[in-house]
Amino acid sequence: MLTPGSVIGILGGGQLGRMIALAAAELGLKAHVLCPDKDSPAFHVCAHHICAAYDDFEALERFAAGVDVVTYEFENVPLATAEFLAARVPLKPGAKALAITQDRLLEKTFVQEQDIETAPFAGVDDLASLETAVAALGLPAVLKTRRFGYDGKGQVMIRPGDDLTAAWHALGRQSAILEGFVSFKREVSVVAARRADGAFSAFDVTENVHREHILHTSTVPATLTASAAVQARAIARTIGDALDYEGVFAVELFVVCSGSTERVIVNEIAPRVHNSGHWTQDGAVTSQFEQHVRAIAGWPLGEVARIGRAEMTNLIGADVHDWHALLAEPGTHVHLYGKDEARAGRKMGHVVRVRRDPEACTNVSDEGC
Amino acid sequence: MLTPGSVIGILGGGQLGRMIALAAAELGLKAHVLCPDKDSPAFHVCAHHICAAYDDFEALERFAAGVDVVTYEFENVPLATAEFLAARVPLKPGAKALAITQDRLLEKTFVQEQDIETAPFAGVDDLASLETAVAALGLPAVLKTRRFGYDGKGQVMIRPGDDLTAAWHALGRQSAILEGFVSFKREVSVVAARRADGAFSAFDVTENVHREHILHTSTVPATLTASAAVQARAIARTIGDALDYEGVFAVELFVVCSGSTERVIVNEIAPRVHNSGHWTQDGAVTSQFEQHVRAIAGWPLGEVARIGRAEMTNLIGADVHDWHALLAEPGTHVHLYGKDEARAGRKMGHVVRVRRDPEACTNVSDEGC
Repeated sequence: MLTPGSVIGILGGGQLGRMIALAAAELGLKAHVLCPDKDSPAFHVCAHHICAAYDDFEALERFAAGVDVVTYEFENVPLATAEFLAARVPLKPGAKALAITQDRLLEKTFVQEQDIETAPFAGVDDLASLETAVAALGLPAVLKTRRFGYDGKGQVMIRPGDDLTAAWHALGRQSAILEGFVSFKREVSVVAARRADGAFSAFDVTENVHREHILHTSTVPATLTASAAVQARAIARTIGDALDYEGVFAVELFVVCSGSTERVIVNEIAPRVHNSGHWTQDGAVTSQFEQHVRAIAGWPLGEVARIGRAEMTNLIGADVHDWHALLAEPGTHVHLYGKDEARAGRKMGHVVRVRRDPEACTNVSDEGC
Repeated sequence: MLTPGSVIGILGGGQLGRMIALAAAELGLKAHVLCPDKDSPAFHVCAHHICAAYDDFEALERFAAGVDVVTYEFENVPLATAEFLAARVPLKPGAKALAITQDRLLEKTFVQEQDIETAPFAGVDDLASLETAVAALGLPAVLKTRRFGYDGKGQVMIRPGDDLTAAWHALGRQSAILEGFVSFKREVSVVAARRADGAFSAFDVTENVHREHILHTSTVPATLTASAAVQARAIARTIGDALDYEGVFAVELFVVCSGSTERVIVNEIAPRVHNSGHWTQDGAVTSQFEQHVRAIAGWPLGEVARIGRAEMTNLIGADVHDWHALLAEPGTHVHLYGKDEARAGRKMGHVVRVRRDPEACTNVSDEGC
């Protein structure tokens, strides 16, 4: 267990690392950040950072020597880096969670091994196996790289009649996974925390809307049946246990209907704090960032109760130019990441709007199928 | 008006500077801190700091060159320092607020000039003027240094029969003020924000309990009549306007009775964020730290509504050793300052407990006289 004054090492210096560092500071902990980008937003909020590549082992050695625990803000930490650090200082979440979640094929196989439903999928290593997979799953389907995809990058939609060779080349002829099309009603996620001793706590299920493959809004309570919400939470717990997970993670889910019954199936797992949990900063008693720090510190998990209806909206690219108008909206919480350049598609900040009406804390709104 | 990405310079690296820096970061601003203490808690949460004396003008020159605005966490900034900086970069709040509030005699005189009541007082420059003051105000009374007092330091209680020469020597024979005894029912404060254009916003009146001259708890809503609450807020506005104030400030008040009518009289003014406003971090829509940043940035002031009944308790010295038990209390928000040594009387952190029951947002509880 960490004591106040300890140092949390964070791999990755983006907005997630920055918000972990800020949450650590509120709890009397220090943060050191390692990131290759010299303009990393997280560097601004720490007294110590190392600007170095993730495979600069001399830098990793110095980093490990100065921290009491290492965590990360992204799932694409190279496994060699994770193992090098884990040999020197506790790595939380552990390398197992990384190894599985940074490979879409391993991840989906792992989820099915827990008797949890996913979209139908098949591994693709060459054009022949792509043809076999298409025959098995049908079209439309999505061909995705096994590794390094995010926000819609590294994927190609294949529709009936499309040329498979073209799709295979478009993806760069690399190890891939074909995912069958799921006709979902909506997308939701569970952001949960687990400690080494199995203590588990999940925030309320969040309903997510994407635009151009990037999260646009997250809303709580989500529109789904109480039984689907219970199922979503149980899935998160099963996954957390199976990964011996320490820290906060997110499970993205599709809400689908079977006749009049709603159920959820797993889309993907993120072994880190998650954009769909940003509403907790202003809409829950404990934020996901504080919860992550508590979990990796081995401290009691915080209360996850909501304090109202909350909606988080991402500020993507030029959206951030509305900052002044947003600051003037009563009760709107503005979070900006300190990034200089508002490039298209870049996450620049987010806002959380909370409605504190008394009925706001019913757990789910049940619309049914 | 600042734009996101701007740099706020903070004089003073204690917990107040630290929490201003953290609030600035959430709004996409950077913080640079200047403080003479190498272990300053605020250094931990900024990429840039300067460890230098407040009268190191070479260091102040460098500090001013790297920031877009300067603010401070304590009222004892030397005036020469304030003026040196103000000649180079906007200083907010301005030097006028500092000059008046760092001298108890100037401050009380200024308050009375606004037709606002204070405890009776008289300036004391030598033993003869102390004798005159005692004759005028009666005993008991408190003899305080005009400058550099805080948390009960720099003051001597004089009771009937006490030796005035001994009191005068105990205080170090320096310029002082004698304050007549006020029989107060309780102590309250108003934490308010004012922008350069006169925009004003006050958090709900807070009830404060001190132990050994150090703030122990702050509770909202305060127990005072609605008319006394209105008066308290009006006093804060008058003082803010008269000081051309920019930023957050606190007015500490005594609640006293005249027959069956409650009124408030000013005890002191703090030209900065204030310990009695810490509850706003978890108990109000906008924290006093964010509000200070908004005000000095020239941005819209944030919503000050409470989200429940709140109680802030300081963790003084060894109190902080209860950190683990406090983290385990559901709904208790723990704030630790990252100070290494839990010396007696040292402010190590605070906790905020919020009760979100529906009736929690009535504005005042009216007990009457």
